[in-house]
Amino acid sequence: MRDPGNPSEPDSCHYAFPLPISPVIDPITLELVRIDILPSGLDEKVEPLRPWQPVGPSEYIPEAQSLRTDLKALRVVQPEGVSFTVENFSELGRLIRWQKWDFKVGFNQREGMVLYDVHYDNRPLFYRLSLSDMCIPYADPRSPFHRKAAFDLGDAGAGIMANNLQLGCDCLGSIYYMGGVLADSHGKPVDMPNVICIHEQDAGILWKHTNYRTNRAVVVRNRELVLQTILTVSNYEYILSFVFNTAGDLAYEARATGILSTQPVDVGLTKTPHPFGTVVHPGVLAGFHQHFFSLRIDPMVAGHGNTVVYDEAVAIPRDPKLNPHGVGYTVRRTEIGTSGGFDLDANTNRTFKVINPAVRNPVNGAAVGYKVMVPPMQPILADADSFHHRRAEFADRSVYVTRYADGELYAGGLYTNQSRGGAGVRSWAERRDSLAGGDPVLWVQFGINHIPRVEDFPVMPAETLRVTLRPVNFFDRNPAIDVPPSRQEVNCSVSVDGNSHGPGGEEGGQGQNTACCASAGCT
Amino acid sequence: MRDPGNPSEPDSCHYAFPLPISPVIDPITLELVRIDILPSGLDEKVEPLRPWQPVGPSEYIPEAQSLRTDLKALRVVQPEGVSFTVENFSELGRLIRWQKWDFKVGFNQREGMVLYDVHYDNRPLFYRLSLSDMCIPYADPRSPFHRKAAFDLGDAGAGIMANNLQLGCDCLGSIYYMGGVLADSHGKPVDMPNVICIHEQDAGILWKHTNYRTNRAVVVRNRELVLQTILTVSNYEYILSFVFNTAGDLAYEARATGILSTQPVDVGLTKTPHPFGTVVHPGVLAGFHQHFFSLRIDPMVAGHGNTVVYDEAVAIPRDPKLNPHGVGYTVRRTEIGTSGGFDLDANTNRTFKVINPAVRNPVNGAAVGYKVMVPPMQPILADADSFHHRRAEFADRSVYVTRYADGELYAGGLYTNQSRGGAGVRSWAERRDSLAGGDPVLWVQFGINHIPRVEDFPVMPAETLRVTLRPVNFFDRNPAIDVPPSRQEVNCSVSVDGNSHGPGGEEGGQGQNTACCASAGCT
Repeated sequence: MRDPGNPSEPDSCHYAFPLPISPVIDPITLELVRIDILPSGLDEKVEPLRPWQPVGPSEYIPEAQSLRTDLKALRVVQPEGVSFTVENFSELGRLIRWQKWDFKVGFNQREGMVLYDVHYDNRPLFYRLSLSDMCIPYADPRSPFHRKAAFDLGDAGAGIMANNLQLGCDCLGSIYYMGGVLADSHGKPVDMPNVICIHEQDAGILWKHTNYRTNRAVVVRNRELVLQTILTVSNYEYILSFVFNTAGDLAYEARATGILSTQPVDVGLTKTPHPFGTVVHPGVLAGFHQHFFSLRIDPMVAGHGNTVVYDEAVAIPRDPKLNPHGVGYTVRRTEIGTSGGFDLDANTNRTFKVINPAVRNPVNGAAVGYKVMVPPMQPILADADSFHHRRAEFADRSVYVTRYADGELYAGGLYTNQSRGGAGVRSWAERRDSLAGGDPVLWVQFGINHIPRVEDFPVMPAETLRVTLRPVNFFDRNPAIDVPPSRQEVNCSVSVDGNSHGPGGEEGGQGQNTACCASAGCT
Repeated sequence: MRDPGNPSEPDSCHYAFPLPISPVIDPITLELVRIDILPSGLDEKVEPLRPWQPVGPSEYIPEAQSLRTDLKALRVVQPEGVSFTVENFSELGRLIRWQKWDFKVGFNQREGMVLYDVHYDNRPLFYRLSLSDMCIPYADPRSPFHRKAAFDLGDAGAGIMANNLQLGCDCLGSIYYMGGVLADSHGKPVDMPNVICIHEQDAGILWKHTNYRTNRAVVVRNRELVLQTILTVSNYEYILSFVFNTAGDLAYEARATGILSTQPVDVGLTKTPHPFGTVVHPGVLAGFHQHFFSLRIDPMVAGHGNTVVYDEAVAIPRDPKLNPHGVGYTVRRTEIGTSGGFDLDANTNRTFKVINPAVRNPVNGAAVGYKVMVPPMQPILADADSFHHRRAEFADRSVYVTRYADGELYAGGLYTNQSRGGAGVRSWAERRDSLAGGDPVLWVQFGINHIPRVEDFPVMPAETLRVTLRPVNFFDRNPAIDVPPSRQEVNCSVSVDGNSHGPGGEEGGQGQNTACCASAGCT
């Protein structure tokens, strides 16, 4: 319910007032079957309803805050325009070109933003890239909370839930917006404006070297192209982006924000840690839960005929001739010859790569490839016999590799609502298909175990995760070697004195010409 | 040597022409003892010197490239000035205030940038934060390469090797520069201008929620304050930053860039993978190596008397009453009562936290704390008896916790040059000191196993690592709840048509007023 003390505010945060009841509705007749009372103590016991004990609100809307007044404006300006171009290749699809990259962008009901035909310098890299599904199982084993396990793509849809992004709110700088057209539940077309925003951003220094003999420095900044979409699924928001850079990297970024899914807890329970959640406000429990994302990568690195391998760094044994001091190590490669599930292993620096054995690097003869840099995740904690585990077919391994098959697009299966497992990526991988034919698909899982903090309420600062696809012996040198150096006459940076109250201020006045950047044409 | 084909270019990349010889010099008399010939095949054998086989250069300087011409300018503008202030608190020290944070910045010969007395909203958080040391052991076991293991702080010094940062090159936007004064090897003062640059940056969306009942969106962007220093140690560059945000996070970021340390390899060896390195240019081998960074954290979270704990998420057993469906899990806390070394464990979501048991969160009674988010690393591969392992006292565990002791500042010991181990954090931790007194120091290790790519030559795109210190039940709500929402009238973003060649362009023309941002005062 909303704050009873402020009934006229429609945007009062109702997650601060979880009701202790759960109505059970017949989905066919829409009739009320019964009203369950929720457990609100430390165990499964359910107490009779008692009169509501008044507690205060916790609002996220700005008019409920005493806002900071000392955050000065920061603007991103591109006076010559943007560095990317957009062409139509179909009624709705867009072909983007930026810094030797080209790729097509689609948008559908379930996956939202999808990339197709990704090339760098006209060389093929990825046939199709998309978020395949998510699953968010909750830790609370008590009825009815034991049912909480959302598949935000399969159950709801990243496309149909996409936000209409607003200039100056969701995106900063010079922005190109893409819309989509989807179907509603009655099959009628729905215009979805501004579901993807595209812009460039600066990401600090990409490379630098100072020759200590001549003292000459060369600095190149990292420019990124971001394609961002945001979805709201009831309480939660996900900010999902593809991020390209000028050194051949392509990253997928997920930011989890929005509001925690809350449930009632006895107001007195603030002295004991709760076994299944964190008290984030008086009477409000935010249950522990895991977030699993599954990124589907259909590669065409230097063409088709790709192979997935993983490399590990291993110590070599002591040997009086070759390794007398015990410091030697080398790299061991394992080729993934049949479909299956795989884990990360930081202790061996295990690194998954997509390589093309038929195309060799001109410098060192290695098979050209891209590595997949995956953040570690805790696998699903629900036990192997549980429906959470059986349904979340992707939540137990960091990497699945399958042989491409038509129709196998969604890691949790085609129908996740009330699914019982057996129809997703784990099942496909268990076919033990030979990958010798060279048509592998990678499913990369990443996520967080969200043990809520008080700081995550009433709205949570984003938790950010990134998967990066990075060239490994694909190019013949640093692909960003030809990016123009960072120059003051282009960047027009400003030296400030930090409003300093002491003699330190004079240090701020430096903007001299140097070998690396002549300040001309701007202050 | 430099490119023989272009002898007048002083900035020719000499790492592309490694000589096959290694002169041995007596460090006392500076006389030549002998000249060793380097092994350049696949094993330890040394062949007699042969005439040099000419190979081409690989240059990183811009005049040797055909530079891209389609990267449009991107500027960061703060028309109202910056949001931070700088005060002197001593001859050289600076007190920075920004967005409820305040802290002091120092700069010394060995550690470079050091933070002291970090507070948020006047509440104490960290007494001292610094990079404590680095170690970079190499994989090649053959003489003389087996000796390669640099301690860039202990051997060289992050302060004395710091770059003089240049406006518009190393930093983008509105920049405050800090200098330092150090001593040279003769004890004379050395003025070190612009060793730290301080600026704000936008880091995308910090939090967002759309109320699906009213369709009202509230968006707050993530503003960061960056303190950056860059050091050059011969071939390599390290870009080291502290990054603060408006939600109480403090991150330490390391970017490894610069030029690989190279050695000669027989030009014909491009068909076989080399056991100890990657061929990055004809005749040039870049050896495998590990980078270890050790961040020293001396905490005062909500005052002194801190305790270090780690939390793990563990499944609870099936139980017909409490966990009949096998989905339940809970959090188990382990208090670190005695000094020692500790590992990460993604399988248990092991999370290290500094808590203050004497200060309780007003909402849920938990001990207030900060968690330490550490990226995974492969421990040192050199065996336990090797000098690499014995000297790199911090390179085997992700976390060390010691009891504070005067003089224990450097993870590899006070003297790393020719050290033999026994004088660093591993040794201190092995004292098994009781931490009951409440004065722990954390040593957080992170790094990469750098298996070079051709793309890392002649200069490498930065490899970036981040350790984040994030509040956990320290505040009574989202500390960024009072950051003003993202508004077009402040941000002045621009809608672009992406130079589109089709009808898609009209989608770019949207900049309507919405509930979340009225566009007023700018286009």
